Amino acid sequence: MIKRKKGIIFVVSAPSGAGKTTFCRRVLSELEGIVFSVSYTTRPPRENEVHGRDYFFVSREEFLRMVEEGKFVEYAEVYGNLYGTSKEFIEGYVEQGVDVLLDIDVQGAEKILSYYSDAVGIFIFPPSLEVLRQRLLKRGTDAPEVIEKRLKVAEKEIEKADMYQYWVLNDEFEEAYTVFKSIFLAERSRSERLFLEGRGLSHR
Amino acid sequence: MIKRKKGIIFVVSAPSGAGKTTFCRRVLSELEGIVFSVSYTTRPPRENEVHGRDYFFVSREEFLRMVEEGKFVEYAEVYGNLYGTSKEFIEGYVEQGVDVLLDIDVQGAEKILSYYSDAVGIFIFPPSLEVLRQRLLKRGTDAPEVIEKRLKVAEKEIEKADMYQYWVLNDEFEEAYTVFKSIFLAERSRSERLFLEGRGLSHR
Repeated sequence: MIKRKKGIIFVVSAPSGAGKTTFCRRVLSELEGIVFSVSYTTRPPRENEVHGRDYFFVSREEFLRMVEEGKFVEYAEVYGNLYGTSKEFIEGYVEQGVDVLLDIDVQGAEKILSYYSDAVGIFIFPPSLEVLRQRLLKRGTDAPEVIEKRLKVAEKEIEKADMYQYWVLNDEFEEAYTVFKSIFLAERSRSERLFLEGRGLSHR
Repeated sequence: MIKRKKGIIFVVSAPSGAGKTTFCRRVLSELEGIVFSVSYTTRPPRENEVHGRDYFFVSREEFLRMVEEGKFVEYAEVYGNLYGTSKEFIEGYVEQGVDVLLDIDVQGAEKILSYYSDAVGIFIFPPSLEVLRQRLLKRGTDAPEVIEKRLKVAEKEIEKADMYQYWVLNDEFEEAYTVFKSIFLAERSRSERLFLEGRGLSHR
């Protein structure tokens, strides 16, 4: 009897290494009615990355044509590669009542959150920059100088945290994840996103 | 490093029999940093009700003196008894950073939500009026004519559901309770209710 008006856009950002990817994957696997927003990129696929699942891998030429056609709600060049978020992808799901989860950096989030005023921004904090450094070292995918660069970026990202409606501190993983997931459940229960079918309750 | 500014006022209403009391008791037992707002009433205590835990039981004379002194954020006469919500009780906890849960009818909620603009309203829906009737019959505490009266009241209450920020449909109990609890966790994570201690993240 209570129905959803349309899907919700969840925008998740975090400094690299704060646990964002793990959180996003898990919430996608545990909730129904939500999809991961697949971005377009000119970056070559990494090992294990699948076209259409992780990214739509396109040429720089094709990407720029899409820019011209106004296909992206936001796009940006990061470390020399272009990344773009497709309006059609997001709006197609939202109109069908399916939530869309965007895993996106702070600059991208800023554009998404201002373009879609009813989108929900979630920022995940690492416990501290020192813990973040340790996590990045342990992950072993980045060279030390890249890690130091990421930490500088993290500091700048944290300065932008105010534009997100929710803050989750990833100190203790399970506890933080519970809070993260709660945000999705709570937002789905906001009355402004719902309506009562018929007038009042049915008698059956 | 992320700190709460102050406690949150949660205002929970539902038609009688929708499961409100069970939800409230459970969330109070499972969460830390939250207390139940104990109202003042001139109604005589029921069996098992404890002064200071369920209500502050006071004489009509004392109650009216408190009204004169502006002690109540709201008060009302329901079925011939006076009920009032103490400002001092709520604000004392909120200032200490403790959340306060109010289990209150729709008229009372309306006053609380307009007086405390950052309070969070949650309305619990029964699956249908027919299910509600069955639950009230099964509970066995009300005479049939009282139940019919409660159902009429329920219909009127549901018409006011728009003023609550959250709607929880109590169809399947565990699922509905999970959503209910999520609202508390999510609201505690709203950035507007938090601040970063120091500037940015500490390096330790």
